[in-house]
Amino acid sequence: MNKRLGSRTLRFGAPPSLLSWASVAGEMEDRGRLRGRFDLVYEDVSLKEKSWEKAECRMQQDALALAAKKAGFEKTRLDALFAGDLINQCIISSFGAAALGVPFLGVFGACSTMAESLGLAGVFIDGGFGQYAGAVTSSHFCTAERQFRMPVEYGGQRPPSAQWTVTGSGAVLLGAHQKPPYLTHACFGTIVDAGITDANNMGAAMAPSAFETLRGFFSDTKTTPADYDCIVTGDLGTIGSQILRDLFQEEGVTLGERYWDCGASYFTPEQDTHSGGSGCGCAATTLCAQLLPELADGRYRNLLFAATGALMNPTSVQQGENIPGICHLLCFSR
Amino acid sequence: MNKRLGSRTLRFGAPPSLLSWASVAGEMEDRGRLRGRFDLVYEDVSLKEKSWEKAECRMQQDALALAAKKAGFEKTRLDALFAGDLINQCIISSFGAAALGVPFLGVFGACSTMAESLGLAGVFIDGGFGQYAGAVTSSHFCTAERQFRMPVEYGGQRPPSAQWTVTGSGAVLLGAHQKPPYLTHACFGTIVDAGITDANNMGAAMAPSAFETLRGFFSDTKTTPADYDCIVTGDLGTIGSQILRDLFQEEGVTLGERYWDCGASYFTPEQDTHSGGSGCGCAATTLCAQLLPELADGRYRNLLFAATGALMNPTSVQQGENIPGICHLLCFSR
Repeated sequence: MNKRLGSRTLRFGAPPSLLSWASVAGEMEDRGRLRGRFDLVYEDVSLKEKSWEKAECRMQQDALALAAKKAGFEKTRLDALFAGDLINQCIISSFGAAALGVPFLGVFGACSTMAESLGLAGVFIDGGFGQYAGAVTSSHFCTAERQFRMPVEYGGQRPPSAQWTVTGSGAVLLGAHQKPPYLTHACFGTIVDAGITDANNMGAAMAPSAFETLRGFFSDTKTTPADYDCIVTGDLGTIGSQILRDLFQEEGVTLGERYWDCGASYFTPEQDTHSGGSGCGCAATTLCAQLLPELADGRYRNLLFAATGALMNPTSVQQGENIPGICHLLCFSR
Repeated sequence: MNKRLGSRTLRFGAPPSLLSWASVAGEMEDRGRLRGRFDLVYEDVSLKEKSWEKAECRMQQDALALAAKKAGFEKTRLDALFAGDLINQCIISSFGAAALGVPFLGVFGACSTMAESLGLAGVFIDGGFGQYAGAVTSSHFCTAERQFRMPVEYGGQRPPSAQWTVTGSGAVLLGAHQKPPYLTHACFGTIVDAGITDANNMGAAMAPSAFETLRGFFSDTKTTPADYDCIVTGDLGTIGSQILRDLFQEEGVTLGERYWDCGASYFTPEQDTHSGGSGCGCAATTLCAQLLPELADGRYRNLLFAATGALMNPTSVQQGENIPGICHLLCFSR
């Protein structure tokens, strides 16, 4: 079977099964639109650890342990773990997995990391390199704020285009083809530089990459948005998701109500997060708390999950460099 | 064919071909043991770019362009590019690949990134997901020093156990099984925490992970060091590589002269780099400037390349956290 469609879409030969998934999040996230859907909610997002970084590590460990428990097996049975986060040198994922004793593959795709990790886990399983693989990613408001912007205690003001880093982690376990739901396709994105330099407007920086990947996937698979029950982008936020709608509309394609964005819909308007949620945890927890449960329950026949990432660091922003975007897409079906 | 051996070793079904490779480095590196072997040497490691980061980006672009030229094809023909570096949020690799227009997979394994990238490229190709894939990594003394330690201009003193970040980049292009040399096995490592907290003693932090991965690989493949013509670790340096020899010796296994370390042997004693070279570029340029050329020329029948990484960032070190290590191993043969 040809596993490649068109210029870049991968079609899994024996689509890997989504064996289980789990999400953990902070209490602010649990006051948002996903209220009541997380597997574990932390009232205190320090998790009583001595640093925010240790707290975020434990979130990844908790998400993975919960997913393993649901699948009914030891997490040490994994043949590979693909993991990533936003913190410098991906220490959250490395430290989080240090005690696991399973082959570890560190991945970086900014906020697109969940789609990249899970897509690579699919390549690993469908390629015949193992029976079980895991993907886990996270973000934490307090680790991200002080690293990318300013210490939380400063209470710095944020412009309306800014997004709010989600405190949460999602984990998914994949297994060789057995039972639905399945991961059927992956479309790894190219880097798209739209010329944005404003680190407080990530949505605009990422929207063109989401457009590029989605359009490429539709072209490769000879499908249209109408062929999917649900199309979700990662964390474009209110501004970026409107740009994506506009880009498709300019080509005469209406995304309509089947399309929505994890970031734009994560928090309620009263939570005053400006342009919405962001961070690796935003798309990852939405996937594990809402999308996969609804797919498994039969609400959707299929689902496109297009996680987006803004490629920058504080040094590159200070140097006046553009912020390129990337978008990795996964297609799931029952 | 079973692609899995023992607990963790992957045996490629139709081993991917190493189509071409290239290395670029600074003039100090060219005064070391690899003198005259690099494809391109920069007299001025700023590459006349306006930042060290832009210089390092261009090094990756140059290495990839040179490898593509040797293979006789456009680098835009790649079905996937796996890339990583040491700089926060992997901006070197992202920015370096921004103009390429090929599916991009960001990878982070600290100084083990070349083995992780190339191993994943092998999984991608042998899994049937594409015809051609690339792996590129780099490090630059000046981007790394100011990020991990202190601005270069300070001229800070370094203890004898410290290593020197190599300024260089290596790129390898893999293709579906065609002609030797081949990538025959990959063994992705687990994270090993040996309790080291001294960021100036990375060799000691990484040696136990190299031991763990090599020992696991020998066990999975039922081979011994004597079955390989050359066994090379990434950048354990003089201290770490001696620890690795000692760990094997304690089990009655002598690594002997077939074993050496890229970091320990990179610079000459007169270059006064203390415990040797390090950085993603250390193992990557040694692979592309020496190991693969010598394998292709028939000097070795086979070769083990075990790149090592120290998992930390300046925040984690300041917080007193341990520095876990990871080692990813690749086996090449003619």
